[in-house]
Amino acid sequence: MNKAFFILVIIGVPLSVIGSLLNWNFIMMFAIYCVTIISLANYIRRSTESLASVVGDTIGGLLNATFGNAAEIIISFFALREGLNTVVISSITGVILVNLLFAGGLSILIGGLRYKQQNFSVFKARHNTGLLFFAIVVAFVLPYIFSSRINEAKMQVLSTAFAIVMVVLYLLALFFKLVTHKGVFTGEKKEGEEQEEPEWGKGKAILILALATVVLAYISEKLVGTIEPVGDALGWTEVFIGIIVVAVVGSAAEYVSAIYMAYRNRMDIMMEIAIGSTVQSAMFVAPILVLLSYFFTFLPLVFTTTDLVAMILAVLMTMSMTNDGDSNWFEGALLIGTYIAMAFGFYLL
Amino acid sequence: MNKAFFILVIIGVPLSVIGSLLNWNFIMMFAIYCVTIISLANYIRRSTESLASVVGDTIGGLLNATFGNAAEIIISFFALREGLNTVVISSITGVILVNLLFAGGLSILIGGLRYKQQNFSVFKARHNTGLLFFAIVVAFVLPYIFSSRINEAKMQVLSTAFAIVMVVLYLLALFFKLVTHKGVFTGEKKEGEEQEEPEWGKGKAILILALATVVLAYISEKLVGTIEPVGDALGWTEVFIGIIVVAVVGSAAEYVSAIYMAYRNRMDIMMEIAIGSTVQSAMFVAPILVLLSYFFTFLPLVFTTTDLVAMILAVLMTMSMTNDGDSNWFEGALLIGTYIAMAFGFYLL
Amino acid sequence: MNKAFFILVIIGVPLSVIGSLLNWNFIMMFAIYCVTIISLANYIRRSTESLASVVGDTIGGLLNATFGNAAEIIISFFALREGLNTVVISSITGVILVNLLFAGGLSILIGGLRYKQQNFSVFKARHNTGLLFFAIVVAFVLPYIFSSRINEAKMQVLSTAFAIVMVVLYLLALFFKLVTHKGVFTGEKKEGEEQEEPEWGKGKAILILALATVVLAYISEKLVGTIEPVGDALGWTEVFIGIIVVAVVGSAAEYVSAIYMAYRNRMDIMMEIAIGSTVQSAMFVAPILVLLSYFFTFLPLVFTTTDLVAMILAVLMTMSMTNDGDSNWFEGALLIGTYIAMAFGFYLL
Repeated sequence: MNKAFFILVIIGVPLSVIGSLLNWNFIMMFAIYCVTIISLANYIRRSTESLASVVGDTIGGLLNATFGNAAEIIISFFALREGLNTVVISSITGVILVNLLFAGGLSILIGGLRYKQQNFSVFKARHNTGLLFFAIVVAFVLPYIFSSRINEAKMQVLSTAFAIVMVVLYLLALFFKLVTHKGVFTGEKKEGEEQEEPEWGKGKAILILALATVVLAYISEKLVGTIEPVGDALGWTEVFIGIIVVAVVGSAAEYVSAIYMAYRNRMDIMMEIAIGSTVQSAMFVAPILVLLSYFFTFLPLVFTTTDLVAMILAVLMTMSMTNDGDSNWFEGALLIGTYIAMAFGFYLL
Repeated sequence: MNKAFFILVIIGVPLSVIGSLLNWNFIMMFAIYCVTIISLANYIRRSTESLASVVGDTIGGLLNATFGNAAEIIISFFALREGLNTVVISSITGVILVNLLFAGGLSILIGGLRYKQQNFSVFKARHNTGLLFFAIVVAFVLPYIFSSRINEAKMQVLSTAFAIVMVVLYLLALFFKLVTHKGVFTGEKKEGEEQEEPEWGKGKAILILALATVVLAYISEKLVGTIEPVGDALGWTEVFIGIIVVAVVGSAAEYVSAIYMAYRNRMDIMMEIAIGSTVQSAMFVAPILVLLSYFFTFLPLVFTTTDLVAMILAVLMTMSMTNDGDSNWFEGALLIGTYIAMAFGFYLL
Repeated sequence: MNKAFFILVIIGVPLSVIGSLLNWNFIMMFAIYCVTIISLANYIRRSTESLASVVGDTIGGLLNATFGNAAEIIISFFALREGLNTVVISSITGVILVNLLFAGGLSILIGGLRYKQQNFSVFKARHNTGLLFFAIVVAFVLPYIFSSRINEAKMQVLSTAFAIVMVVLYLLALFFKLVTHKGVFTGEKKEGEEQEEPEWGKGKAILILALATVVLAYISEKLVGTIEPVGDALGWTEVFIGIIVVAVVGSAAEYVSAIYMAYRNRMDIMMEIAIGSTVQSAMFVAPILVLLSYFFTFLPLVFTTTDLVAMILAVLMTMSMTNDGDSNWFEGALLIGTYIAMAFGFYLL
């Protein structure tokens, strides 16, 4: 599979550059950018993992936290610069729906077709779903309920305060996981499974990480530039582009890995990728985007009712699924069914 | 108890026919129809169970799935034909509230007065409550949140799409339960409890099933015809008739069985009846009614906020109660208290 | 610590009396009243506990139920008499937020800084969170959803009916805990921990209880009289005073004890105090205030959307935290983070 991503990068990057210079058809370019970003995100993910296994768990964890959602942050940054705040806020919703329902569901379904029942650590799953619930509650629901009763200036203060609380708690969560309660999270891994060899050495990994990030940033800027014309041409609303397209492109690296892990019956890693990266999106990426938006048009973290309910439902579905420590194909089918129903609803909006 | 139902049928059916021909007082007829339908539903239930134990688990499961909520479907069909969509949508809400809170609560209370603590399989209970939560979420909450933002034509498309997703997932749930994960659901029963003898032979069961269904359909049509005049005479709204009266009549067969099973300390069967039949109402009956309504006035699955919140609360209460695998009289009292409070609120509307 | 409360009472009570007679600055008096009430509440708590351990579990349980939230009831009574219904309804919200998020969070955080992991009985915690969820659902959410569809007169009937249902179920809950299922709740205590000696004898405890209650009532009346001028002077809304100030003062006795218990790793008692006293506020104090309000201006139990969502989130956070039977510092930090975010939001309103 890594080979496929190699080919996509080798073809996609030059095509992106040439196409954007020669002003090729923007719908085709939009598709090329998307595919190229997905494959570059795969390289970022793999080089981060290689680095992480060299530098030790603590710095490795921080690296993962920083570069794990790199594509999502970079695309959103350029969208903020273009004033596409609706796309940004929708893509935050979208990443959560895609990770939990689509990526989580597809992983569980594919894993479940191969194994009758798959088990995972309830402790870790609950830690992550608990964090996720907290993130949605504090960062998303509270601003929503207060927003109808206070004016815009106060809303900016509130959004900023909430963003800071979230980032602080996210750093505390890392500190909890990587320092004070390290054994609880890594203890079990050592028993059952062998330590994986890093794919690349330290130097090569840093080089690939730096290169892939720079190129991804370049193409993301181009991608964001095509969002409005593509939306107009295909009749897609900004909401739909944010919630489905940008979200799927921005988090593709994660769910490809998640599905692969489920297929190999390594459900704890799969859960960590699917749910852990959603926690990261909600507790770290979203508040960082709020703070970054000070440089452009301020982005208050106020979602539409539809977005908010969809996210809450996705989190509650995930909590209800993971609460028992095992999964089967039918649970995957339920999650995917929910995603399809939601995506269809957002398409009709 | 079966004797009581026998007497009610023997008296109720002729009275229903004669009374409707002679135009007896419609309030009395309404009462006679209700009682007769309840006792006929008991016969449908028993003949289905007899048949199910003869034809094997898979076809038996399908039979139960089809005829389990026969009374509910038949009454709603005639109500749809009469254009009483408010009654139909309220009765869907009502069946869920009655099954979970009233039937579930009364079963747990009565069982709990006899046994200090009653245990049931957490796995099965969670499977059912998980399905229920999913059904409410996808089939009921999503159309509600999208309905305020899209027009009526799109709402019909959305409702239809959601109904199809639900039916497909309901069939997948049956496939999961009856085929791929059969052992998980039936394995435990074999150890502890003896296989019950079917009450009737195959031929007799089919005959009773056919007869009871036909007569029940006949009386349901009459019953639906009296809803409007009875509502006018007694000052009951269509919402109250749907949510309390039709729901109680339509699902009486189930909760009589549920209470009986709790009294005999067979809590797994009790849970299967109370929660399983609610899943069936939400995932199968409700979407089927949406699809059937194409022949009459389209019935979009959009509940009022009150209905929706009441259902969500009932499901969450059930999840919170069943999460620990045991029950006691006080949990039953809480569920009944919730039902009384809700019913009183709906009465005041 | 008891010494500190002794000194505060010895200084606070005379100062309160003298200051109110001499009309000292009302902001200073407000502060003096608050501190004195907190220390008197501590005496009420300790005398109730001493009495409870003498008179046996059943009457002791009833004593705790009656005097456990004495300060809260007394302050709210005088606020009702002054027509400060907004303060009363906000303080109900506030007590729930303070107990669950602030007191619970601080206890778990402080305990967690001393012990890596603290365990408590999942059974008891679930019993309490289940009750709490029920209380919020029936007493708070249902009136809210019905309130938009029925008129004020009917709302009074509904509020009264719900209040009666709640009090009945609260008494049933006591009956369950103290009579029919007594062993389940007290059985474990006997094994591990020694029975504590009561601090005071029967006579002394009754005397202190009576004295402290009378003085607390006197000072509460004075405190309520200063709420409006203090609010005007400091720019605090009635909502903020109710939700933060009155709530913190009214339930200080509980959370001081809760934190102390967590520090000593007696998490079951800590949970009983933090969650159990919240159940009491919701299922007993709130309905009693509704019934008491018949003497003044009727207080329907209808919260604002903001209040309601904040309470539901606090309960769900607590359920998600306590579901696994262990706690650590990070869970405490999350709860406190949620409280800070909410308090800041209410401050901005």
